[in-house]
Amino acid sequence: MGEFELIRRFFAAASCAQPAEGVARGIGDDCALLDLPPGEQLAVSTDTLVAGVHFPVSCDPFLLGQRALAVSASDLAAMGATPIGFTLALTLPTADADWLQAFARGLDVMARQCRLALIGGDTTRGPLCLTLTVFGRVPRGQALTRDGARPGDLLCVGGDLGDAAGALELVLERMSAPEEVAAPLLARYWSPQPQLTLGQALRGRASAALDISDGLLADCGHIANASAVALKIEAARVPLSPALLALLGESRAVECALGGGDDYLLAFTLPEQHLPALRAEDWPVRVIGRVEAGEGVQLLDAAGRVIDPPARGYQHFGSAGD
Amino acid sequence: MGEFELIRRFFAAASCAQPAEGVARGIGDDCALLDLPPGEQLAVSTDTLVAGVHFPVSCDPFLLGQRALAVSASDLAAMGATPIGFTLALTLPTADADWLQAFARGLDVMARQCRLALIGGDTTRGPLCLTLTVFGRVPRGQALTRDGARPGDLLCVGGDLGDAAGALELVLERMSAPEEVAAPLLARYWSPQPQLTLGQALRGRASAALDISDGLLADCGHIANASAVALKIEAARVPLSPALLALLGESRAVECALGGGDDYLLAFTLPEQHLPALRAEDWPVRVIGRVEAGEGVQLLDAAGRVIDPPARGYQHFGSAGD
Repeated sequence: MGEFELIRRFFAAASCAQPAEGVARGIGDDCALLDLPPGEQLAVSTDTLVAGVHFPVSCDPFLLGQRALAVSASDLAAMGATPIGFTLALTLPTADADWLQAFARGLDVMARQCRLALIGGDTTRGPLCLTLTVFGRVPRGQALTRDGARPGDLLCVGGDLGDAAGALELVLERMSAPEEVAAPLLARYWSPQPQLTLGQALRGRASAALDISDGLLADCGHIANASAVALKIEAARVPLSPALLALLGESRAVECALGGGDDYLLAFTLPEQHLPALRAEDWPVRVIGRVEAGEGVQLLDAAGRVIDPPARGYQHFGSAGD
Repeated sequence: MGEFELIRRFFAAASCAQPAEGVARGIGDDCALLDLPPGEQLAVSTDTLVAGVHFPVSCDPFLLGQRALAVSASDLAAMGATPIGFTLALTLPTADADWLQAFARGLDVMARQCRLALIGGDTTRGPLCLTLTVFGRVPRGQALTRDGARPGDLLCVGGDLGDAAGALELVLERMSAPEEVAAPLLARYWSPQPQLTLGQALRGRASAALDISDGLLADCGHIANASAVALKIEAARVPLSPALLALLGESRAVECALGGGDDYLLAFTLPEQHLPALRAEDWPVRVIGRVEAGEGVQLLDAAGRVIDPPARGYQHFGSAGD
């Protein structure tokens, strides 16, 4: 038996430990089989992370496993889907037992947190690279899409923005910070919390939604395009964490919040009548602007005047444009 | 807009051209949405192909696209599933328009043939690598699994074996052959025909099934293990193509048929009473042996004596064990 066959058995054993609702057959046959309750649709999303492009080659494997699954699960949150399971396609230069144990532990922590069962995958030899495909379910017609925003709706986000972009300065060792500043930012980068329950609570309420992966301005542009509306963001209402402000000061913190990717919080548009109920249920809903007729995304100052966004946006880890 | 964003748009446009049954929402949102008819289960399989490991770096991109999707679709055939769609995670060192056009054409040819719609994916920069995840549907409880073979069942395959292993000698330029010998073998390697309709016809009839990707002996071992039975293969009944016999002669042709991977034909066990109906419906069913009580896979000569399998099995393209 080759070392890669051992890895397959290792993950197969891990997956058997988690019998999961909706998974009729997991790893071990030609296909996995999923059951879907009557009246529900299956939500599917695929993401690839490449070493040296999306994460450092020397990245801690526990943190990598945790973050990779969180990033993918966030797409389920953005659709308002309830998680079912995921497949892992893992390409590795060598089968290093320590690396794999740590990676699998990180994956497992996030899988339990998100209630996602490992249902299948493939392990191959090659340059380090992961592709995760996540599966969820959502009542038919109730998925949160990008194309339903209407003039008059509020524009909201699910929490403080920019922390992951701030953390990247620490990850890439371009800055350092005392523990009380660094710890919460690094936690947001390495262990993003997919807003799965918020996404489910927004079903039947939000008119459009997505998760912020490319940066607030860029992602709001996706909603504006898909819905054929204009989104107006009041810069002063964009929520910032104390840690980010402490690390970067206000001006650069705002820049990270507007242009920084990797936050994996939800951005959504909301008919105003739904706001009181969401507030009463204690969901983290921060109103940052409004939907109007028109097109594109505009940034407004406190007096409502259109201002230029920061000249240079955030860049993901590695080269731009990929 | 970066070159990789252009690629995403290119594939998005391609997918919109094929509105497909069961696909409620394709590319363009955080998740794709699939509908499943009542009483059916979703079948899912993921496969990765790495340049230099599973195919030559200089591989013709049209042939690569065609073959990659066929290999994945074959897992749906092995479960008896009806195809719905697939996601493509494509990692590329550069965005070469000619390469991409040709790759997408190859993918499209196989997608139409298999009736698989492109429903989502991710395009990233990095060493050339593809992960395809395929989706199909199957009536609940009727999927063809590996664990149902029972003593007395016939062991069958869906056609001539070993052609892909023979073709690999030509692909890797270790041998050459006249056109009439090379063409049919190379077609089997570059454009395997997933036996989707045969798989569907075997629902409710075959007791176990899989597609032959690792070689007949190895894959029969998977059925024997999962079903806790012994499989007896009569070497003389293993079907061989005239082209393979012409290329390699009988002894090496048998070796390829027993140990060679990449054929992507179905192997299945069948209660004998179903054979006449399958024959009457003109399905390609070749009986090569029988299921008995016991364990493992044995090869028998014409007199029914157990013989040793060829000492050294087939190797996939690239290094073994992955």
